[in-house]
Parts: sequence; structure tokens; C-alpha cells
Amino acid sequence: MRAAVLYGGRIEVRETADPVPGPGQVLGRVLSCAICASDLHFMDNPDGVAADDSGLWDYRADQDIVMGHEFVAEIVAYGPETERTLAVGTRVTSLPVLLGAGPARIIGCAPEAPGGFGELMLLTESLIRAVPENVPFDQAALADAFAVGEYYVRRAALAPSDVPLIIGAGAIGLSAVAALRRRDVETIIVSDYNDGRLETARELGATHLVNPARQSPYEVWREVALGGRARRVAFGGSDPSTPNCVAFEFVGHPGVLDGIIQQCEQGTRILSAGGPPEGDRISSMVAKRKGVSIQFGGGPAPEDWYGTLDAICAGSLDVSPVIGMAVDLDGVPGALDLARVGNGPARIMIRPTGDTALPAAAR
Amino acid sequence: MRAAVLYGGRIEVRETADPVPGPGQVLGRVLSCAICASDLHFMDNPDGVAADDSGLWDYRADQDIVMGHEFVAEIVAYGPETERTLAVGTRVTSLPVLLGAGPARIIGCAPEAPGGFGELMLLTESLIRAVPENVPFDQAALADAFAVGEYYVRRAALAPSDVPLIIGAGAIGLSAVAALRRRDVETIIVSDYNDGRLETARELGATHLVNPARQSPYEVWREVALGGRARRVAFGGSDPSTPNCVAFEFVGHPGVLDGIIQQCEQGTRILSAGGPPEGDRISSMVAKRKGVSIQFGGGPAPEDWYGTLDAICAGSLDVSPVIGMAVDLDGVPGALDLARVGNGPARIMIRPTGDTALPAAAR
Repeated sequence: MRAAVLYGGRIEVRETADPVPGPGQVLGRVLSCAICASDLHFMDNPDGVAADDSGLWDYRADQDIVMGHEFVAEIVAYGPETERTLAVGTRVTSLPVLLGAGPARIIGCAPEAPGGFGELMLLTESLIRAVPENVPFDQAALADAFAVGEYYVRRAALAPSDVPLIIGAGAIGLSAVAALRRRDVETIIVSDYNDGRLETARELGATHLVNPARQSPYEVWREVALGGRARRVAFGGSDPSTPNCVAFEFVGHPGVLDGIIQQCEQGTRILSAGGPPEGDRISSMVAKRKGVSIQFGGGPAPEDWYGTLDAICAGSLDVSPVIGMAVDLDGVPGALDLARVGNGPARIMIRPTGDTALPAAAR
Repeated sequence: MRAAVLYGGRIEVRETADPVPGPGQVLGRVLSCAICASDLHFMDNPDGVAADDSGLWDYRADQDIVMGHEFVAEIVAYGPETERTLAVGTRVTSLPVLLGAGPARIIGCAPEAPGGFGELMLLTESLIRAVPENVPFDQAALADAFAVGEYYVRRAALAPSDVPLIIGAGAIGLSAVAALRRRDVETIIVSDYNDGRLETARELGATHLVNPARQSPYEVWREVALGGRARRVAFGGSDPSTPNCVAFEFVGHPGVLDGIIQQCEQGTRILSAGGPPEGDRISSMVAKRKGVSIQFGGGPAPEDWYGTLDAICAGSLDVSPVIGMAVDLDGVPGALDLARVGNGPARIMIRPTGDTALPAAAR
């Protein structure tokens, strides 16, 4: 098959071996696959991948790896030991995990688990879900991305008086906006240096847009939540009768987390999806003084993932605002570079079929 | 009065002005006051204190400051606008907060809020509680320290299957052991390089003592909680059917928090009381991959504080194992140096009255 292959640390668009479905696996023809920031983390930080002891990732510079874990494919064939409930030709997506004879792998993150950056990919039969014909395949491909925001928002367990502040309006930040909107959260403050992304956040339900080049998001937070006052400090902590800040860190650059710690209000709860590979410095004494808590990662859980897919399929979650571009396989290296700069559209879709038209709803 | 005065960055034992109780305040004669690590933080890190915008601390190198915020005093006189419900001579303690005409201050952390390192101190009438005659004053003086462990343990909200691991058996770590014991937690693992402190932890209820110079506390945790296996990683997080680790960080040296992040199991919840003034480096990507959460500070709340005092007064909490030494005012500089080394008794009591006998129960 043709694929955008990760080999020797760079992307080569060329032929590679057709994947062969093993026990319990499905061979799929890729219709659409999004580029995710974690594809860049994976290809740019092999050492970080090697340090992971979960075994879910397996970076090999000397073997062909086909990345891509936000996908929709149509079923081409089944491997051995499969139920074959869904007809060949059915459009499907799934949690990006490949189960089979070997160790479990994240799809697109190991040589034996080719993902959506190629014409053909492998899926796990027990994890696939049919995508209804009326659901645009790009949208279903984004269930994985939007499940992340869903997870963090679920995990934040917002009290009615809590006021969320989203730092970073990339795909994950935008997915959190959508998850907050689905919960009818009235005030959603979003901060990003990219005005285009802020506009996308507004489309998804953000109520207050802040470009930190022009205004402090923490000042906006104080203004909106506390009428411009600081949160009162009581002995031993913050005053629980005042609205609390729940800050979502969706940037992942060194210093961003500490910036939140330095500038946030007493008692702020931080949910951090970033995690720069080089580690980060935090003002731990300030964090202690403010009683800050940080939840790093930890999800999404299957309930977030399939719940998000269900919402997309039911039409109650429209993820199309984040889709800004579609490319064929030859466009993958350039699209990855664009994603690396972080200034382009939140999601670029790869269409290995060569059909790169975007529906009218997406731009 | 005579006091161990913090002036120009060092401790001078000499005369200083007698404190004069303001509106709502009480003048107390100090019977006992413990040295706390945060006294050392305060005197050793004026820049960190200056960076605090809560206003609760006020470091002034050119004014006399009398530290000491874990105290029992007897009432000598009342200031104006006081109710005077308790008779002069009553032994009292309180949350270490001085309220009055000026801004609220932590007692012992501002020139106008002299604490227990002197013969006389100021208290807030609305916060004081009488200490029954049958309760040793040293024990009541430690309500403040033991409220910290109580807070972190309450905040940890342990599930029945969670297994706690306490890193650092200083006074706060030991107070957490006592708080876990009071909740009938069956397994309490404590790690410290000081075997004497580990023995004290055992007296307070620890079930597994680990000296990391000889054994990894994380290996012990895995052995005790999981029979030596690693916690299973499921897609999107850890397997909720296995016991979770709740790690309490009570050391506060740079690198300790990251050591926990690096070595802990998937899904570990960390409660961190440390907060080194110089900040700390964390492996944020590892934290993300493991789904670690960290609660920094945030307490104790008044409920923890007075609940702990009540338990001490009722005899259901015996804090005497942490008391290892008593000194008079002349002994304060040496005792602070001993506390700074961190290798002495968990609590050294200051007796400005000059009576430095320890009851038989304490060593």
C-alpha cells in the first residue's frame, strides 16, 4: 500500500507492506484520519517513548511505522478468529488500540499497528463501532480528540459556581469547550495567542475569548467570576463561598503550567494535558501556598471515548469547526510541519483515498 | 520581655518590647511552643515570604519578630473590645492567626504578631480555646502540627482499597500517620532515612517502615498492595479494580516530588506539603502518562485544627511520641539549628518559663 511512513525519524511517502490482520483484527481502508499533536510528540521524542514502560508504544527508527490514530475506515477483510458481525464495506472507527496475538499497542504507534496515514490499517474487531452513513467520516474520526476534552471536563467535576478557564485552543482545548458547552456551563473563558482559534472556540460555545498578547486571562477570570476582586484567603485555604477557578492546561510548552500556578487564584484546580517531554519547572511553594491541585492526564476512559462518538453520531456534538484542511498522502509531510508550527487549523484531515474536498460546513 | 528574637536574619535572645493587646486580642504568658519547619522557611527565605501576596506574613529584617505558632499560653490580660469569657490564668491555644485593628497575620510571622518564642504573646480572643488542666500543655501545643496531617488525610479521601505511602517522617508525616491510624487504615507505609523517626512512626501506628537507603518504598508498596506486580495499565488510565497508591510528600526538598512521579504506580494521587522555596522540576510527561494528581497545600481548615485539638484534649490522639526535647529561651538558637539539620527529634518544645523537664511519656 501507499502510506506516509515514519522511518529513520522522518516521513517518507512511498510503498510499504500491506498490513495483514491477525487474530481478532480487521483490515480497513482508511477514509479519513486527523493529524494529532501526539503524532508529533511520538516522532519527535523517541527517547520519551522509549522511557514509557507501559508497552503501548514502540518506536523503531529502522522499521516502517504508519502513524494516525484518529480515523474512520471501511472494512476490507477480517483476520482469523473474528465474529464478522459488520459487513465488509461498513464504515467504522474505534478506540486506537490494537489487540491481537502480540502486546496491546496504540494504533499508529508501533510497526505492527499501522494507523490512518496509509491506505490500509489494522483495527481490533472487539473495539470497532459502525459509523452511520449520514455522519460525515471526518467528524467520526475526531471522536478520539473530542473524548480528551470530555475526559478532562468530566474529571474536573465542576461545581455550579466554578468558572472554567481554558489555556490553549488547539484541538484538545476546543474539545473541552464543546464538552463544557454540552454541560450547559454558562461561562467559558478561552485563552490563545491565535485569534483564528479563538473564533473557533466561540463557534463551539466559548463565552469569553482572551488573547494573552493583549490581556491577562487571569484578569478576565477575576473580572468575570469575582467582579475584579481577588479570591479571599481564609486561614488554611481559600474562601469556599467564592467561585473557584478550574484551569485547563492544553498547551504543553515548558513554563505554561508554572504560569498558571503563578497567576491563578487561591484554590485553583488545574487539569493538565500538556506534559512537555523535557519536563517542567514549577513554583511548588506558590502552589502549596495557593492550595493548587493538578490532575495530569489519566484519560480518556472508554466511557469518554464511546460517549463522544455517540454524541457525534447523534448529531448532538458538531466537531466540524475544528476541521480546517484536508490533504492526500503526498500532503502529509507538509501538513505535519504545519501542525508542528501550531498556527494552522486545529485539525488537518488526511484522505489516503485522494479525495481532499471538505464539506461546506468545514473550512 | 525576654524572647528569641528574629532580627537581621538571625536569632538573638534578649529583651524586646512587651506586646500590647489590641482590640479583640489577648495577652498570653507562653507555657510551651514547638519549633516547626515553617519557622525555618520563614527566617531563611525572606524573598519567598515577600512574594506572598496573601498579606498573612510580613518579614521585616529591621524589626523584632518573635516566631512560634504552635503554642499554649495562659491568659495574662485582655485588650479592649473583648468578651473576657475565660478567666485570667486559663491555659489556652488557638489557630495561629492574629486578628485585630490591622491586617490578619499568622502569629509569629510578623512584627506585630509575636508568637511563642518569647515570654509573652498575642492571641485572638475569638479563636482561643481553653486547654483542660489534665491535658499536658506540650500536647495541646501540637494541635497545629497534627492538624496538618489530619487535613491531608481528610483531603486524600482514601477509598477502602487505597494503600497510603508516607514519604518523610518529620512532624507532619508523623501527624499523617496518626490521622490514618485514627481512621483505622490497616496498612500505613512510612519511608524516612532516619530510623529513629521510623520507630516513632511505628508508635503512632505505621505498619510498614522503609528506610530508602536500604529498600525502595515503591517496591514495598507494590509488594504490600499488589503482591509485587505493577498496577495494570488500561487504555486511558489505570485499572480501577486494583488498589491505588496515595503518596504523601512531607519532605519539601527539591527532587522528592519528582522522585515520586518517576517511581510511583499508574494513577497515584500525591498530596504534597513540601514546596521547596526554590521551586522544583517535575517530569510532567511521566505524570501525564501515569495520570498522576497532585494536591499542593490548601489546608488545614479550621475543622481540621479544632478537631485535632478536641481529639488531643479527649485523649483519643496521643501526640507525645513526636516530642523529643525541651529547651528554654537560651536554647532556641541551637534548637533551630538542630531542626534545620532535620535529624533531631520531630518536635523540640520551647519553654520560655525555663522549666525544661519533659514528662515521662515523652523522650
